[in-house]
Amino acid sequence: MHFHKLISDLKEQSDNKIVLLVSDGIGGLPMKTGGLTELETAHTPHLDALAKAGVQGLSTPIKPGITPGSGPGHLGLFGYDPLEFVIGRGALEAAGIGFEMQDGDVAIRGNFCTVDQNGNITDRRAGRIPSDESAKVVVKLRAVKIDGVEIFVEPVKEHRFVVVFRGVNLGDAVSDTDPQRTGVPPLEPVAQNDASKKTAKIAADFFNQAKQILANEPKANCLTMRGFAHKPHMPSYKELYGLKAACIAVYPMYKGLASFAGMELVGKPATLEEEIDVLESSWKDYDFFFVHFKYTDSRGEDGNFDEKVKMIEELDKIVPRIVALNPAALVVTGDHSTPAKMASHSFHPVPTLIFSDLARPDGCEQYGEKYAVTGGLGHFEAQYIMSLALAHAGRLGKFGA
Amino acid sequence: MHFHKLISDLKEQSDNKIVLLVSDGIGGLPMKTGGLTELETAHTPHLDALAKAGVQGLSTPIKPGITPGSGPGHLGLFGYDPLEFVIGRGALEAAGIGFEMQDGDVAIRGNFCTVDQNGNITDRRAGRIPSDESAKVVVKLRAVKIDGVEIFVEPVKEHRFVVVFRGVNLGDAVSDTDPQRTGVPPLEPVAQNDASKKTAKIAADFFNQAKQILANEPKANCLTMRGFAHKPHMPSYKELYGLKAACIAVYPMYKGLASFAGMELVGKPATLEEEIDVLESSWKDYDFFFVHFKYTDSRGEDGNFDEKVKMIEELDKIVPRIVALNPAALVVTGDHSTPAKMASHSFHPVPTLIFSDLARPDGCEQYGEKYAVTGGLGHFEAQYIMSLALAHAGRLGKFGA
Repeated sequence: MHFHKLISDLKEQSDNKIVLLVSDGIGGLPMKTGGLTELETAHTPHLDALAKAGVQGLSTPIKPGITPGSGPGHLGLFGYDPLEFVIGRGALEAAGIGFEMQDGDVAIRGNFCTVDQNGNITDRRAGRIPSDESAKVVVKLRAVKIDGVEIFVEPVKEHRFVVVFRGVNLGDAVSDTDPQRTGVPPLEPVAQNDASKKTAKIAADFFNQAKQILANEPKANCLTMRGFAHKPHMPSYKELYGLKAACIAVYPMYKGLASFAGMELVGKPATLEEEIDVLESSWKDYDFFFVHFKYTDSRGEDGNFDEKVKMIEELDKIVPRIVALNPAALVVTGDHSTPAKMASHSFHPVPTLIFSDLARPDGCEQYGEKYAVTGGLGHFEAQYIMSLALAHAGRLGKFGA
Repeated sequence: MHFHKLISDLKEQSDNKIVLLVSDGIGGLPMKTGGLTELETAHTPHLDALAKAGVQGLSTPIKPGITPGSGPGHLGLFGYDPLEFVIGRGALEAAGIGFEMQDGDVAIRGNFCTVDQNGNITDRRAGRIPSDESAKVVVKLRAVKIDGVEIFVEPVKEHRFVVVFRGVNLGDAVSDTDPQRTGVPPLEPVAQNDASKKTAKIAADFFNQAKQILANEPKANCLTMRGFAHKPHMPSYKELYGLKAACIAVYPMYKGLASFAGMELVGKPATLEEEIDVLESSWKDYDFFFVHFKYTDSRGEDGNFDEKVKMIEELDKIVPRIVALNPAALVVTGDHSTPAKMASHSFHPVPTLIFSDLARPDGCEQYGEKYAVTGGLGHFEAQYIMSLALAHAGRLGKFGA
């Protein structure tokens, strides 16, 4: 039996609320042998109190040794096996800029490139053209018109943009046109199945019109297209868990990922304090709240240990406001580790705690990596965080008699 | 998505080197309640230093409760799910004597047996005929000639030998001829599919000619054939991990298993010290080194606790020579446990440590079973040792954006 079928069968209606507080990239490493991690270094009296009363463990985002990007990392946290539910590059890019895809849309990641007079690529990233310059060129591409299909072209960053085709019978099995090397022209978009032939034809048409429009650009005089993708088909939080779910996040990427799971995007917070304002004001309206805190990851990516420590301490300060709302289960975790030492996402498992009246005490006195190693939740895959949260919130029935 | 596809997609080129030091059967048990295991008893200052600076855990070779033979045990260590990649008995036997199979070869395990004047088996193992006697009889079987097929017959041990057919269109789906009981004649080899009909016919022909040759032997006057098998089809270390891999081992079985994974067999070491000599002299030529130490298993199989302790201490002595080479990741593990108390392989999980600059400290002060229980790697399946090793060596990219 698929685990989703089991969970969906066992879900129970309840007023018990769940908060999933995701501190992006919270897990870390000591800078030097014998040192402490960022989380172990931070002064976190409120998180430690949750750890003492609750239960913690180490969650592996994907599988041992695998470093996740934000997409697979969050899919795991949301309860979707990230190796089963793979979000196409185009859809992830669209999510990242907050573009709301509809069923049947095909999203594509576009890259500006530079070609010579023979049409051969000389720079696959058009000299990493600055975002403000690039955005102006992207707008020009909106002049492309193709019968029977609505086309959206949206800037992302530097040489990257998103193209979305909206129409009927548009398959998404189309090959990338980026040859992955210079000295050759972009490839033709080729349909990988019959259902995608129309999409491939539209893509070829788009490319030809776009090339005319770009002909006189100094750097971005051509384009490649990658990762043709539908909106991922995932069972919603309502179907799977019986949860009316809210997403409270600042950045578009996380809103996009949450919307794939059928969460409603609530409020327009710009800071962590504002996120908690939204949580408080919408408390009565939802069963589940995904609250995303970005800056632990950002400072980790910067390689700034001390600032990441500060961000964790900022997070700690808002914990009492969440606890005051009296959730049946409060989960604190991250989508992956981002050690300042590595200045990047990493494969290390993530300290994860559940604060709930049903948590079995595990003797952990604080929240942190070295405590989580021996915590009561053990070492487990992140895709089970949701079933653990539902269980601790008393929202799952018994399997079998 | 299959895990191998994921790993292969994420592999990155790098000069960072990995050493997989396998101490065969290293895990153990105390001889008496309240005692220590062999590894806990051994004085291992160098391994303990690795444990202190690195991270350890317990790896389960196959699944909880399953005792592996050397074949599945090593396949797991090498990163192949041992329940998915099953090596046929004949191919394993060929690997065990260092016979280099080619693609398309069919290897078969032969057993001498004794039959009465009616051709019915009276002893399925020909009185466990001594190896030196048996080898002479095996050589006689090389007189068998069959048109269009090259035949190799090689002694193994006691009543056992290996037959290999080399030719075109030889399927390996042929039934065993060992009836698994006495009082009846050997069975006919029967093809299980059309592609194996030729092989079955050759096997029947081989049996008839061999029976003539053996007719006057006092004990080994007949034979049975089992485990018809091609060389297993496994993605190579190069394909899977992007690793140029070396096998440094004394015994043929481990060389054979490593060669199935596409590792190159380097040097002809006869002792552990010579293995490390080979490691040092070939350090520049490979990305990955599988170094196999046999005697922890051998002394465990002998039921000799004290000698197994000594072997672990021998292993400890060479650790500084490996560390001096500065591998990006050094993994120390075993393919299974071999407790002297049981004088056999066992199902107990294996203490496994990774020494690397990216290891997250776990507070373990020594290398050993009771430390590994609460180690930072947790309890995991051996098939993830390779992804963990690659990750700790900085040789895997990020999954998704």
